[in-house]
Amino acid sequence: MPFVQPFPTLARDGDAAAILDQTLLPYRRETRRLATLEEAAHAIRAMQVRGAPLIGATAAFGVALALREDASDARLAHALATLAATRPTAVNLHWALARMRARLEPLAPASRHDAAWAEAEAIRVEDRETCAAIGHHGVELLLALAARRDGPVRVMTHCNAGWLATLGAGTALAPVYEARERGIGVHVWVSETRPRNQGLLTAWELREAGVAHTLIADNAAGLLIARGEVDVVITGADRVAANGDSANKIGTYLKALAAREAGVPFYIAAPLSTVDFACPDGAAIPIEDRDADEVLAVQGLTEDGQLARVRLAPPDAAAANPAFDVTPARLITGILTECGLSTPERLREQCPNPWT
Amino acid sequence: MPFVQPFPTLARDGDAAAILDQTLLPYRRETRRLATLEEAAHAIRAMQVRGAPLIGATAAFGVALALREDASDARLAHALATLAATRPTAVNLHWALARMRARLEPLAPASRHDAAWAEAEAIRVEDRETCAAIGHHGVELLLALAARRDGPVRVMTHCNAGWLATLGAGTALAPVYEARERGIGVHVWVSETRPRNQGLLTAWELREAGVAHTLIADNAAGLLIARGEVDVVITGADRVAANGDSANKIGTYLKALAAREAGVPFYIAAPLSTVDFACPDGAAIPIEDRDADEVLAVQGLTEDGQLARVRLAPPDAAAANPAFDVTPARLITGILTECGLSTPERLREQCPNPWT
Repeated sequence: MPFVQPFPTLARDGDAAAILDQTLLPYRRETRRLATLEEAAHAIRAMQVRGAPLIGATAAFGVALALREDASDARLAHALATLAATRPTAVNLHWALARMRARLEPLAPASRHDAAWAEAEAIRVEDRETCAAIGHHGVELLLALAARRDGPVRVMTHCNAGWLATLGAGTALAPVYEARERGIGVHVWVSETRPRNQGLLTAWELREAGVAHTLIADNAAGLLIARGEVDVVITGADRVAANGDSANKIGTYLKALAAREAGVPFYIAAPLSTVDFACPDGAAIPIEDRDADEVLAVQGLTEDGQLARVRLAPPDAAAANPAFDVTPARLITGILTECGLSTPERLREQCPNPWT
Repeated sequence: MPFVQPFPTLARDGDAAAILDQTLLPYRRETRRLATLEEAAHAIRAMQVRGAPLIGATAAFGVALALREDASDARLAHALATLAATRPTAVNLHWALARMRARLEPLAPASRHDAAWAEAEAIRVEDRETCAAIGHHGVELLLALAARRDGPVRVMTHCNAGWLATLGAGTALAPVYEARERGIGVHVWVSETRPRNQGLLTAWELREAGVAHTLIADNAAGLLIARGEVDVVITGADRVAANGDSANKIGTYLKALAAREAGVPFYIAAPLSTVDFACPDGAAIPIEDRDADEVLAVQGLTEDGQLARVRLAPPDAAAANPAFDVTPARLITGILTECGLSTPERLREQCPNPWT
């Protein structure tokens, strides 16, 4: 049975887009309507949508929204530039915009609005298929691990690379959902993922899906891996460089170090649109610095169930908030894309260039 | 000028003890009076006092409180057992209790109450001197690093091993405070230290002391170290095994891995009372599992300045909360105690056994 998102992360709604507002999850499940380019750009910047594949698709939808009343060359260029400037690290954004540009620039302005919607929808549908393919390839890894032990396969992940991050089943979690379908026992260690706590989204996803899991502070990952309580680490990625170095949510690198130290395999799961063959290595990947206030305050539910933000440190406290780190290719056992499992070294030969 | 705690972490107050309640810091500065054994045991368990040296001294004070009206053998044994059961990992607790037992058991019950106070006070005063010695030895490391660069020495620490964790200047932060006294530029990267956010205590300490620092999510440590933005990592410890393996706050191990990978020195700073020569290696150190709710909820200030707890995930969410991890001796550049800088391998030869 193909994976169906319990609530669509992104859908067309007439001449607008409807998104699940992820800044309110897992506390409130609200759909937000995006009617303009500015609303789409804001949704990406403010992380109402997040996850590299979903960011890319939302940008494509943003182009369609931008062209509703004016599809001139200038307007198209403005839309592409506005969306490209929202977030620097996830390359799927640029991939989706490049694809929209390639499709729309040659067309007469009068044809562009309909074509933009069609292309954006194609990106959405293809990502669903991509997630399914990642799940099919990735479940083989879990099957192999399951054959070597009695209990469930103990997967560790970081951040949220589940269905909430994509238009389908997810990337890192796609093999987990596929394993559940096939009756393979899986338990997932879920890192909180400070400062934005996307691990809470992962815990919510897994709970809704009935997948056994345990939430941990990010700090606990090293102990659990060193103690032999983790069989495999799988995370998503925001940009994979040509040499296999992979940028992903801040903290991923620490898990990769701990995995290598303990001889635990570490996999990146991402669509090919996350691979940037034009980027030679991790040093060339731009790392987003986000507002320090994300570190200084946190949201949750008060005793009476109100969504509230509490301040951990004064607003003028000195804080830094780099949002991604780079895991060097040498720490990555394999990269799982819709074209199958590859190594960082062989990715270029084995998989088609996503940009051509 | 010797370091003076801005607010005493623990002091005698007549027949009671006065502590700074660290569960309210950095939001509220309240002194709590401990008048009974049970109150002292609760203060340690609930982390109203925390930090291995301060836990040990508070336990010693707890013995004195316990003997006020009954200093029989049975009462002494009950006090020692009650306090020993509060927290499993920090060995200073057991060291202080062993010292109290050795001093008090041979005495007639009538002499024990006064002797207990005297011994507890001796432990308190000695820890202050120990912190000063760690600062004096440790500042040499910072001086050597300062000589190699123009800007401030960039120290990374984890959790709180400052004056709040001790009866003096701290352990990991003692060299930092000593450097400030000597006019050596220092900048401290302060890890938040989820789930209990003791990094906020460190940020508060450093801010009050006018030491430059930057708060980060625990996840950011790997990126900063890999990027060359850290000159040295110094943390405290809760128990150092005979082979140099060191248990410290959960997440320390991940920083040690990142430091080794980048060729950055990693030091443990701790009093000799943290060294457990009877414990062969890290595998023999008991690791405390604390209440999962520490991961699922967090406290901070609401918009109107009220101290409040918000829930990050439902109370019945599956969570694990190991409070410490073990950094293997091979990742530790040196161990800094009051007897000077040693290596994990040579600690036993170079430093006196704290238990004899």
